[in-house]
Amino acid sequence: MARKIRMGMVGGGKGAFIGAVHRMAASLDGKIELVAGAFDIDPERGKLMGDELCLDHSRVYGTYKEMIEKELALPASKRVDFVSVVTPNNWHFPISKDFLEAGFNVLCEKPMTMSLAEAIGLENIVKKSGKTFALMHNYTAYPMVKLAKDMVKCGDLGTVRKVIVIYPQGWLARPIEKQGQQQASWRTDPKQSGAGGCIGDIGSHSENLAEYITGLKITEVCAELTSFIEGRPVDDDANCLLRFDNGAKGVLHTSQISIGEENGLSIWVHGTDASIEWHQEHPNQLLFKKLDAPVEILSRGNPYVAAKSPAAARATRVPSGHPEGFLEAFANNYKNFAETILLKEEAKEVDPLVNDFPSVAEGIRGMAFIEAAIANSKNNEKWTKLKH
Amino acid sequence: MARKIRMGMVGGGKGAFIGAVHRMAASLDGKIELVAGAFDIDPERGKLMGDELCLDHSRVYGTYKEMIEKELALPASKRVDFVSVVTPNNWHFPISKDFLEAGFNVLCEKPMTMSLAEAIGLENIVKKSGKTFALMHNYTAYPMVKLAKDMVKCGDLGTVRKVIVIYPQGWLARPIEKQGQQQASWRTDPKQSGAGGCIGDIGSHSENLAEYITGLKITEVCAELTSFIEGRPVDDDANCLLRFDNGAKGVLHTSQISIGEENGLSIWVHGTDASIEWHQEHPNQLLFKKLDAPVEILSRGNPYVAAKSPAAARATRVPSGHPEGFLEAFANNYKNFAETILLKEEAKEVDPLVNDFPSVAEGIRGMAFIEAAIANSKNNEKWTKLKH
Amino acid sequence: MARKIRMGMVGGGKGAFIGAVHRMAASLDGKIELVAGAFDIDPERGKLMGDELCLDHSRVYGTYKEMIEKELALPASKRVDFVSVVTPNNWHFPISKDFLEAGFNVLCEKPMTMSLAEAIGLENIVKKSGKTFALMHNYTAYPMVKLAKDMVKCGDLGTVRKVIVIYPQGWLARPIEKQGQQQASWRTDPKQSGAGGCIGDIGSHSENLAEYITGLKITEVCAELTSFIEGRPVDDDANCLLRFDNGAKGVLHTSQISIGEENGLSIWVHGTDASIEWHQEHPNQLLFKKLDAPVEILSRGNPYVAAKSPAAARATRVPSGHPEGFLEAFANNYKNFAETILLKEEAKEVDPLVNDFPSVAEGIRGMAFIEAAIANSKNNEKWTKLKH
Amino acid sequence: MARKIRMGMVGGGKGAFIGAVHRMAASLDGKIELVAGAFDIDPERGKLMGDELCLDHSRVYGTYKEMIEKELALPASKRVDFVSVVTPNNWHFPISKDFLEAGFNVLCEKPMTMSLAEAIGLENIVKKSGKTFALMHNYTAYPMVKLAKDMVKCGDLGTVRKVIVIYPQGWLARPIEKQGQQQASWRTDPKQSGAGGCIGDIGSHSENLAEYITGLKITEVCAELTSFIEGRPVDDDANCLLRFDNGAKGVLHTSQISIGEENGLSIWVHGTDASIEWHQEHPNQLLFKKLDAPVEILSRGNPYVAAKSPAAARATRVPSGHPEGFLEAFANNYKNFAETILLKEEAKEVDPLVNDFPSVAEGIRGMAFIEAAIANSKNNEKWTKLKH
Repeated sequence: MARKIRMGMVGGGKGAFIGAVHRMAASLDGKIELVAGAFDIDPERGKLMGDELCLDHSRVYGTYKEMIEKELALPASKRVDFVSVVTPNNWHFPISKDFLEAGFNVLCEKPMTMSLAEAIGLENIVKKSGKTFALMHNYTAYPMVKLAKDMVKCGDLGTVRKVIVIYPQGWLARPIEKQGQQQASWRTDPKQSGAGGCIGDIGSHSENLAEYITGLKITEVCAELTSFIEGRPVDDDANCLLRFDNGAKGVLHTSQISIGEENGLSIWVHGTDASIEWHQEHPNQLLFKKLDAPVEILSRGNPYVAAKSPAAARATRVPSGHPEGFLEAFANNYKNFAETILLKEEAKEVDPLVNDFPSVAEGIRGMAFIEAAIANSKNNEKWTKLKH
Repeated sequence: MARKIRMGMVGGGKGAFIGAVHRMAASLDGKIELVAGAFDIDPERGKLMGDELCLDHSRVYGTYKEMIEKELALPASKRVDFVSVVTPNNWHFPISKDFLEAGFNVLCEKPMTMSLAEAIGLENIVKKSGKTFALMHNYTAYPMVKLAKDMVKCGDLGTVRKVIVIYPQGWLARPIEKQGQQQASWRTDPKQSGAGGCIGDIGSHSENLAEYITGLKITEVCAELTSFIEGRPVDDDANCLLRFDNGAKGVLHTSQISIGEENGLSIWVHGTDASIEWHQEHPNQLLFKKLDAPVEILSRGNPYVAAKSPAAARATRVPSGHPEGFLEAFANNYKNFAETILLKEEAKEVDPLVNDFPSVAEGIRGMAFIEAAIANSKNNEKWTKLKH
Repeated sequence: MARKIRMGMVGGGKGAFIGAVHRMAASLDGKIELVAGAFDIDPERGKLMGDELCLDHSRVYGTYKEMIEKELALPASKRVDFVSVVTPNNWHFPISKDFLEAGFNVLCEKPMTMSLAEAIGLENIVKKSGKTFALMHNYTAYPMVKLAKDMVKCGDLGTVRKVIVIYPQGWLARPIEKQGQQQASWRTDPKQSGAGGCIGDIGSHSENLAEYITGLKITEVCAELTSFIEGRPVDDDANCLLRFDNGAKGVLHTSQISIGEENGLSIWVHGTDASIEWHQEHPNQLLFKKLDAPVEILSRGNPYVAAKSPAAARATRVPSGHPEGFLEAFANNYKNFAETILLKEEAKEVDPLVNDFPSVAEGIRGMAFIEAAIANSKNNEKWTKLKH
Repeated sequence: MARKIRMGMVGGGKGAFIGAVHRMAASLDGKIELVAGAFDIDPERGKLMGDELCLDHSRVYGTYKEMIEKELALPASKRVDFVSVVTPNNWHFPISKDFLEAGFNVLCEKPMTMSLAEAIGLENIVKKSGKTFALMHNYTAYPMVKLAKDMVKCGDLGTVRKVIVIYPQGWLARPIEKQGQQQASWRTDPKQSGAGGCIGDIGSHSENLAEYITGLKITEVCAELTSFIEGRPVDDDANCLLRFDNGAKGVLHTSQISIGEENGLSIWVHGTDASIEWHQEHPNQLLFKKLDAPVEILSRGNPYVAAKSPAAARATRVPSGHPEGFLEAFANNYKNFAETILLKEEAKEVDPLVNDFPSVAEGIRGMAFIEAAIANSKNNEKWTKLKH
């Protein structure tokens, strides 16, 4: 008989957006059970959250350090199998580090760390720990993004020449961090969010999406980062030119001051034989454009998708025409991460289709990109190389 | 401390589409736990499904009657709080009846029954039982559909004049039921699906959507039902003219032989002051068209949605631009149904925003519509009145 | 050396919408020259219009009868080659008749006549005259509509099963005819527009589009015509079920009270092998939906369009991605009509690609449809046969 | 009585795309008459084109110099009022210069010249001549682009912060210039097209659109120009970062190797209060996005458009829902140019709404942009200032 995976959470208290998302995504397939957590810096608020989540009081902890200690004291059959780290950015690294070193599997929100150096450090910690580590880049878990990746891989596009990836949002068009909006406050505070504002928060998703689909690496970036809101200590807008390791060229622009844009992550990949286009806000379709032929609207859930991409098929829960969304994509990473943990526990081989979720490598690339973009924006050289 | 609701399931074995959907939808918010089931007519297959779902063997039953008997024998604190009926249509009524009469709350897939008479019968059974009954019309649980309803209700459209509701699919364009496709087989067998084919399966969703949003009732229907596949004993296409109780006119057409259409439920409501338009395949947007003004794209998750429709806000899990889909809508009915059960258990008042899910009234309307459409299509009278 | 065709116009004075459209459409290709006209019932206003159009005073006439008389008195080398009739509907028949009988070629706005009987009468007049007659159904002159027709014809869709054609507008949602809006006034006056309001004005375009693309004939109609504006003597909304001569079924709905709809003529044709979808407001694309394959967006101006449809290629002026619109489609009928006149004059064979514009046959079908729909709407029989 | 304007043409022989476009655009409104031309370097081919266009043989010239000489010899009442220069780029300047100096009004295709120096030279020639000069930037003549400009001007967007303008095409994804494709051959030959390939051909349209709508000037550019086709001597792809004179930031990317893209000129302008979005391939709509409000779809031809922008209203020929396209926009420049000539001839004041077409100033900006982009792409400095 199958067993459910036991999940713990650090962060994700009242008012946190992403913690609730993680809980729903983990819960969706009915195979992961949240059993413990340290939800809030304020232990009282943490307890209330535990109540709301129907958790046993004994498993709701005041601090993540207490959580490590007390979970380790439990028998293995009750102890959490993994912990999700959903705190502000500055806590991602130390918490992940401590749990890994204590022998727990870890799923961490992005960005993985506050610096490239830390990211490289974490890679070593993960290796040494022998545990499974996942980094939550949810946008690459959409089925049609997986299809796109497989199409590029199998040569449907020929050689990639040009990549456009954009991620406009508008919610920081006004200085709402000064009015106490919780999401805005920590995201515009470099101590909590890191040196990158927009470039870190969502530019890194753009970079990740481009590299994931194309299988290429960005080698150099030329960037103009701007803070349009007076007094905001981090960028809220970024425009970048890109160069890829196969000679392809690219554009990446992202913004949090583009009024009317909600969460407009989109990508166009142009190859020597064909192009693809995908929009996160309508994630169930992928446009495929072959030379001298009609544009095709590939639609999630169809047999022709499964035939091309087993990964897309595996990431699909409901038939075509029944839209899947953000939470389902998120849940795909949880599903693969949890199954991988189980298989490893049973010392079974992990199919690459299961062992399919972002991890430290993606985290390192993200930090390398962010640091290169910030560095380039501050100096007058045209191109800055990514350092890793 | 909150407690989780315990759910049982009848039907939903291997290869069933809708059973898995119900399990994911129930699971999403982490407040409902599947603890028991009679998943399959074949008890062995049922056990395997139970294993897959991590259920205790003692709670996986060979028949639904055994399930009733043995669940009743459990202490109330372990017994299922409700049962989801996700069998082929012909079993909806007898199973719901037996569970209700045994004192269980019931959530039943649509169509509620095989006939209008049975539907009226079930209404009485529900009343007598004092239990909570939900009918799964998931499409009216989308946030933007709830917004549409509230916009009509508060007069944003003026008086409704015209309603167009369509539901084209293409998956039965070929006689795939003869090739053993499980979904097609029972849906085209009148003994399992009822007298209506397409008109029952998805025409009833269209009727429900139109009445839900407008708050009007269809009084008369003029219908042309067709079975385009030779030898198919039920209709696979239906075109209807409608009349509503306020004098509004309408068109409803639905099809399962419209190649290239996936799950194209869409509605247009035209009033004396404004119109709205909504498409299920892109459910996060609602078009609002005022006289002599630009069309507005209302987008789920925005403050202006919440300000107009608390029901839409309550039905929303992630911010605008982060698409929600089919499962999230489905889950909204589960959430409200489960909270209602808990509140009733605690003898608390149930807020109308919580007590917001389809039930027997919608089931009766559905059967009245299906029967009227079938009757009209067979005779030569222009208009047939709905009988209830 | 090629010569320009000389055009005359009856109607199309100040404030007329369609007269100006005819002039621009005729002018577009630089091969038709407007040289004469009787533009207005008020001769003074007619003269002013002639001035505005840079016409010689001697060719601006007070009445169309004067125009016939005086044009006949001119040498053939100066006389108009054809006359465009763009008056209110009630004048279409008598003016066309008189010009044809006087030996002029005629292009007439739709609807061709005020009754089916007149339409049949006009057919005989055209035959007897030996002149070329065109009826302006402009929507079938869009390149992608011609492609659609050729795709059906060559079997790309298999056998047509279902046709949905819709034409919603919203501009008559209020009784603007009572405020002196010129377009609204004559269109809602049965003496000028005919017995059909919306069903005549734009329902006939819908019928024409459906028959043009499918090559089928509507045999029976079941209709609900409504006048939503109190006191409006003609319908402003119509919902119809259709039966076609090959057994296909259909829906046609049209409206002039659907607020927010501008000129939403759209069609879906579903066959046994594939479907097509086209929207007049985005006329440069045609969706093509094959069984178990991605939807294709066919785009005007591409080689694959020309390869399938020489008629579409001929109807195309600028490359793909350079949008063509309403006037270009309109101009296609003028172009073919004018070239046909020239070729006939020179007693040359007329290629079917040139002799490609609507004429009396389409006008008769239109009147037969309008009369059947009106008759059916007034009685209680379910289906009314088209009489011709 | 109004008179028609007499037009001559240089270039636009057989196989030329843009010459035919100019003729249709000039012809559309029935106020401009093509009466003379030097259509081809090969006089025989030129004569055949003259025949096809129904021109008098005496007005079809072997060379443009002959045209100047012989037209000057005609009485003013017969002589062309203006000449359209539609040759390959390298001829734009000398021909425009000669006609202007001979006292003719000139409308010239873009790019205006082969260099910024020439462009500045032409400005002086125009001034000295006292004649009217128009540069054909057709995309800024779309009504919804004029609306966009007026919305920015009247403050609807607040202060502009960010501009994204893109112009992807795919038709040069293969080396079709080596197969004798006429359009490709001269456009990829720097001697005929100028130093810029894609950046000159369509990048300049993007620059022009951005400056037109925003009323801002690009001050600096950072560019990566690429020639993806081996051996192609000009760029076929360009990615640029932009800085504007008010501190706004921007991205401009354009391509002729982006397979599947047809003519995808699009723009997003983000201000402190609102944003707009427009797509050339669907030119009748403009998206308007206000802070915390639904996105509005502004649609050409509606009263709310006219109320905001008399220029958009003037540029509109048919009602909303009746799509206008590329040729209509093109024709707007011809209309304004021709009316301006007439008014000047009559020594009347020219309303700014009439005197509304691109001229030398736009040509100079275009050349300054092209030269700066090319220079920047070749060196390692991050930003290059536009020189004029």
